[in-house]
Amino acid sequence: MDSGRRIVTFTTDFGTADGYVGAMKGVVARLAPDAALVDVAHDVAAQDVVGGALGLAAAAPFFPAGTVHVAVVDPGVGGARAEVVVSGAGGQVFVGPDNGLLSLAAATPRRTFRIAAARFRAATVSPTFHGRDVFAVAAGRIAAGAAVEDAGPELAALAELPLPPPGDAAGEVIHVDRFGNLVTNIVIDLGPPPASSAARVATPAGTVEAPLCRTYGDVAPGALVAYVGSANLVEIAVRDGSAAERLGAGRGAAVRLVPKAPAP
Amino acid sequence: MDSGRRIVTFTTDFGTADGYVGAMKGVVARLAPDAALVDVAHDVAAQDVVGGALGLAAAAPFFPAGTVHVAVVDPGVGGARAEVVVSGAGGQVFVGPDNGLLSLAAATPRRTFRIAAARFRAATVSPTFHGRDVFAVAAGRIAAGAAVEDAGPELAALAELPLPPPGDAAGEVIHVDRFGNLVTNIVIDLGPPPASSAARVATPAGTVEAPLCRTYGDVAPGALVAYVGSANLVEIAVRDGSAAERLGAGRGAAVRLVPKAPAP
Amino acid sequence: MDSGRRIVTFTTDFGTADGYVGAMKGVVARLAPDAALVDVAHDVAAQDVVGGALGLAAAAPFFPAGTVHVAVVDPGVGGARAEVVVSGAGGQVFVGPDNGLLSLAAATPRRTFRIAAARFRAATVSPTFHGRDVFAVAAGRIAAGAAVEDAGPELAALAELPLPPPGDAAGEVIHVDRFGNLVTNIVIDLGPPPASSAARVATPAGTVEAPLCRTYGDVAPGALVAYVGSANLVEIAVRDGSAAERLGAGRGAAVRLVPKAPAP
Repeated sequence: MDSGRRIVTFTTDFGTADGYVGAMKGVVARLAPDAALVDVAHDVAAQDVVGGALGLAAAAPFFPAGTVHVAVVDPGVGGARAEVVVSGAGGQVFVGPDNGLLSLAAATPRRTFRIAAARFRAATVSPTFHGRDVFAVAAGRIAAGAAVEDAGPELAALAELPLPPPGDAAGEVIHVDRFGNLVTNIVIDLGPPPASSAARVATPAGTVEAPLCRTYGDVAPGALVAYVGSANLVEIAVRDGSAAERLGAGRGAAVRLVPKAPAP
Repeated sequence: MDSGRRIVTFTTDFGTADGYVGAMKGVVARLAPDAALVDVAHDVAAQDVVGGALGLAAAAPFFPAGTVHVAVVDPGVGGARAEVVVSGAGGQVFVGPDNGLLSLAAATPRRTFRIAAARFRAATVSPTFHGRDVFAVAAGRIAAGAAVEDAGPELAALAELPLPPPGDAAGEVIHVDRFGNLVTNIVIDLGPPPASSAARVATPAGTVEAPLCRTYGDVAPGALVAYVGSANLVEIAVRDGSAAERLGAGRGAAVRLVPKAPAP
Repeated sequence: MDSGRRIVTFTTDFGTADGYVGAMKGVVARLAPDAALVDVAHDVAAQDVVGGALGLAAAAPFFPAGTVHVAVVDPGVGGARAEVVVSGAGGQVFVGPDNGLLSLAAATPRRTFRIAAARFRAATVSPTFHGRDVFAVAAGRIAAGAAVEDAGPELAALAELPLPPPGDAAGEVIHVDRFGNLVTNIVIDLGPPPASSAARVATPAGTVEAPLCRTYGDVAPGALVAYVGSANLVEIAVRDGSAAERLGAGRGAAVRLVPKAPAP
């Protein structure tokens, strides 16, 4: 195992009004006293696996190799989905339920192991709180130096998130962020495409068009704007406001990039 | 004092929109530069001592011995309740107001000390922010190696939380968690009791019955379910939903376990 | 550079439902593996620069010298405002947008540097997420030992927050905190002034008067109370309740201290 301090991050839908997150941190701290405990996000909407997966994927790649990311958005806790440890490309390790939550963040090639070994689980496991009794224990063991291979049998594959496949010109809203920005599954890698001029969004009140710009400040306060967000996905926002509120649109709303009129 | 890095945890109703929590962390970091600062919960409902006490009790026992837990839900700040340091069984240390907040978490036998010594308090103490000027200072000193006995005179007892006494078959809702799950004071140590078949909950619209199961997945999505939660307390939930919303029931609602019909 | 572990704090309006805060922490952790990452506040109201500035100013002075505070409430991201590093009196370092957010916390005398050097910025900078691609990079470099002077050219001044100037007897509400307390810009350094007896607050329903006391407990539960808060600013609260709700008053409401009637 590499030397140096390990980081363990936490991503959940547990909120921060109860002691659930704290219990998980305690378990990790006891098993890996030198680990640095870092919160990623705990206000993921209750049971919103897609929202949790996007949040984790937005954060995980920036951490140092060797970081252990525990993620728990787990509506099926105690049921059939497996509990897993995933060793992703780039040296990031993920621990959580095998319900798609980890699939966006764990870069391929990756290896997936079921958490089966006794020392990767608490002696008694609450059927409603695997975050504390399975995932935190496994994360603590790994942060303390255990090998991911020791968690249990390797699985053939990690469950994928049932997201609509990313498009390059047409797609849909897959997430609404804290600011009310509509995040779509339209992937653009290198800045606003010169061949497109606007994003057309289907709303309950009809179709609206947002000009494709570089950033919020390129439009007037209160105006609609589309841009390539920090995850290389097209987003629709209202400058200094909330697009979700303004448009009454959320996850699933259809979005299409509109080509520029040809030069005359 | 034991060697090694000390952990200081924080549990408050301060939210995370203001600088209150940050000020407390700064005070601890200045006094105990090597301490690891760990958030337990800051979105405890404003002035909800019971909610804070349950959150702290859910998390604290899992931390390593020697951890210092600062907790501040303190509607009586600046008034008559004492400021205390508690040395609990198992080596956990608690710092906060003596209003019941610490009583569920601080395992007995325990010793309680009033925070009176000058170096356990700021030179000037704001009468509305003991979190920063008393509790964080005391926690920082202890994390830096001071003995709990040096905080001040020992008190005969720690104030107990005025919770209804736990029952084993009848009780009431004492907390609603982030998911809208109704947490009761009915204690069951080892899985759902085979002699009971359901939990009966008094709601504004009449009595409803939730089957006693192992976990959420044992009922259909949207159905009511009762189970023994991670704190060994009976809880009532709606699978993939909120029982608090569905039932219009909250703290104080009566709950009773219903015996299984005898075999014919 | 001083030896020992550096602390990096985070203050944003990013909330904790998305991965934005986590991405920033990852960037810092990769550049400064030994830094301690500490959350100050992430639920600052969206794009509320004043609220963020007050939160940061409430917390920063309590941290050890050498602490690096990253703050991002940045409605103008990608636009004209500069990105800066500020070295404040007392050894605190601040990193963020030059839109007033840092001006309350960065004590004078202070020096301000534009973040221009290539190694203080990511190779590719998202025009909508300078938190990750500029501010976290600069903070990570400084936490790892880089000098603030190396960030870029020194600026003549830091942008000041457009707050009404503090008064000593008349002012206005500048912030509503998590408890619904109304924080004013009336500064009082040493306890409630004996020459004043109450705070008069302009509300939509007319003027109300709150007696000037030491702390909440000096009035009956549910009563209005004014006091000198932990930042030496006059605040108006409802004991065990929310003054903002009770009075329907918020930022901008006029407040005036009322002199004591002269002794007869």
